Amino acid sequence: MKRREFLTGAAVAGVTTGAATLAAPAVARAQDTQEWKMVTTWPKNAPGVGVNAQRFADMVTEMSGGRLTIRLFAAGELVPPFECLDAVQADTAQIAHSTPYYWVGKSPALNYFTTVPFGLMAWELSAWIHFGGGQALWEEVYAPFNVVPFYAGSSGAQSGGWFNTEINGLDDLKGLKMRIAGLGGEVMRRLGVAVVLTPPGEIQPSLMSGAVDAAEWVGPWLDIAFGLQKAAKYYYVPAFHEPGPGLEVIVNKDRFAALPDDLKAIIRYAARATCETTLADFTFNNIKVFSEMRKNFPEIELRAFPPEVVEAMGEKTMEVVEEIAEKDALTRKVHDAFMTFTRQAEAYQANFDLPVLEMRRRVFGG
Amino acid sequence: MKRREFLTGAAVAGVTTGAATLAAPAVARAQDTQEWKMVTTWPKNAPGVGVNAQRFADMVTEMSGGRLTIRLFAAGELVPPFECLDAVQADTAQIAHSTPYYWVGKSPALNYFTTVPFGLMAWELSAWIHFGGGQALWEEVYAPFNVVPFYAGSSGAQSGGWFNTEINGLDDLKGLKMRIAGLGGEVMRRLGVAVVLTPPGEIQPSLMSGAVDAAEWVGPWLDIAFGLQKAAKYYYVPAFHEPGPGLEVIVNKDRFAALPDDLKAIIRYAARATCETTLADFTFNNIKVFSEMRKNFPEIELRAFPPEVVEAMGEKTMEVVEEIAEKDALTRKVHDAFMTFTRQAEAYQANFDLPVLEMRRRVFGG
Repeated sequence: MKRREFLTGAAVAGVTTGAATLAAPAVARAQDTQEWKMVTTWPKNAPGVGVNAQRFADMVTEMSGGRLTIRLFAAGELVPPFECLDAVQADTAQIAHSTPYYWVGKSPALNYFTTVPFGLMAWELSAWIHFGGGQALWEEVYAPFNVVPFYAGSSGAQSGGWFNTEINGLDDLKGLKMRIAGLGGEVMRRLGVAVVLTPPGEIQPSLMSGAVDAAEWVGPWLDIAFGLQKAAKYYYVPAFHEPGPGLEVIVNKDRFAALPDDLKAIIRYAARATCETTLADFTFNNIKVFSEMRKNFPEIELRAFPPEVVEAMGEKTMEVVEEIAEKDALTRKVHDAFMTFTRQAEAYQANFDLPVLEMRRRVFGG
Repeated sequence: MKRREFLTGAAVAGVTTGAATLAAPAVARAQDTQEWKMVTTWPKNAPGVGVNAQRFADMVTEMSGGRLTIRLFAAGELVPPFECLDAVQADTAQIAHSTPYYWVGKSPALNYFTTVPFGLMAWELSAWIHFGGGQALWEEVYAPFNVVPFYAGSSGAQSGGWFNTEINGLDDLKGLKMRIAGLGGEVMRRLGVAVVLTPPGEIQPSLMSGAVDAAEWVGPWLDIAFGLQKAAKYYYVPAFHEPGPGLEVIVNKDRFAALPDDLKAIIRYAARATCETTLADFTFNNIKVFSEMRKNFPEIELRAFPPEVVEAMGEKTMEVVEEIAEKDALTRKVHDAFMTFTRQAEAYQANFDLPVLEMRRRVFGG
């Protein structure tokens, strides 16, 4: 609608001003312009998430030569962070950068598009969404909210968390107070953990004060940036609960449908490019910060969850996701598709990525 | 140059015909159009590589609204496959889709931008190129050839190969006749293997006839498509020599410099989007085909190289890459940057991706 008004105006202006004919395409293009508001669930320029939301916005603006400019609003600047989906549905914002599991209150199926404990690695989630039928299911889940989803990349595998007590067996989890998000929190609760969800800014103080005994956040890059190494002795790596959590760009469906084909393609492939950029950004910075951490903070003791704890986490995970799948027919469909692909991916990687990493360990490690 | 002629022509045409003013931007845009020839080193629509080269071309055409159309020529259609770099340098083609190690005759540094045995996984190569200084080094390597490189994704970890004899120790490699490409071939040669390099179409017949005892190609998706399972008993997985080989888009530097900023961004981010699409395509299809292979060809025996063989491969790899690094100052610089990052990545993944895959194995596997 707006586009047509702009186009008409541009054409008229081009004639009445009698501008140099050589400049006509530029004039026309400059006036055939729209600005979209993009809300995000992240603080301004937050490493990894906020920065890559801004990069997505810049890619669209650059590739469209300014015909579609995306203006980013950080969490709370236009709407509260947990109202981003509502804002895009209502066209208060035309687009958002977020992660699907923030909206599980709308549909439990959205869990699967972020992550499931012991589920898909980042590059496997890409495979499932782009080629394994995930995109069509995701569009079906979001259709009632009048938004179109695009996958926007992953942080890669996250950390298990910062602990002030060692976890040598299942008994050590009983009564533990831990900050942990998502389905991982529900799994931990069933293993006897008192689960707390503190906002990011309060993780370090609550660990420091003893209000919690343990807390997980993201991975080395963000954990060290938030100072968690100052508040706990043991760093449990990796996470059992977030093997490759996914991010999203969601667009108001009517706004997307009204775009000309080239701008539709620009949105679609800017999101695709953002997948690559985001995982690379997290991977590079986690590797770099982990390497520095081992030098600068030798007092941090790395730990891994023992096998009996991992097995119990696995059993509880299967219980939790089976219960989610029971909630409605569409969630069952998403669950079955996701879990079938996860089992196939697991059997494949047991013969590919896992032994490649083991062989490299043998050659470089120790 | 061409672009300016078109622009001038378009403007003049717009004035002299007195076309409806509403259509002016469309007319201007339609005539401000150029077509680039893209050569590739792949057969027409070859799965994984040829198909994703075509997807890249289509993304550019779509996102530019046809202002820059990329016409793909498969291997041999315009120039022989191993003349793609020369063709882009000479502006016979403006752009190519290939893999850097095809041009190691021009600079041995190009090995590192495809892959090194026991080197970077696909998502780590992305991290190094996009954020770890790899892109700037790669541009330096290609500068004398007047081309600009863009990373275009990876196949992920490949297979070790199809063997008609078991490899239970180093003695079993001595005198073995094997088809194996790249640095892996040189490593195998130093372990006593008689290395042969047959074109893809001859791999299956030469295994079948006994002309070779073993052959590696890509991974389950392409290996099964080429019928290699009919010609050998043992499938050694994974590859030691190609943990995450990279692909490239290379563009004639003058052609790239002459593009307006929006088309420059479209090329850059279409390549970035192609990274995501290509790895997802290989990951999805390898997982799917491997799963089908286990059901449909139960007679294929999976094998892994034994530890003493892996260790010897690791030692020979370090010899080979050290010799490459000695060849010139720029190759030394690339080698040092790549190997430093590989060591950091290895130490990181020993605590992240490797144990995540191990934990998933514990929960789902066996």
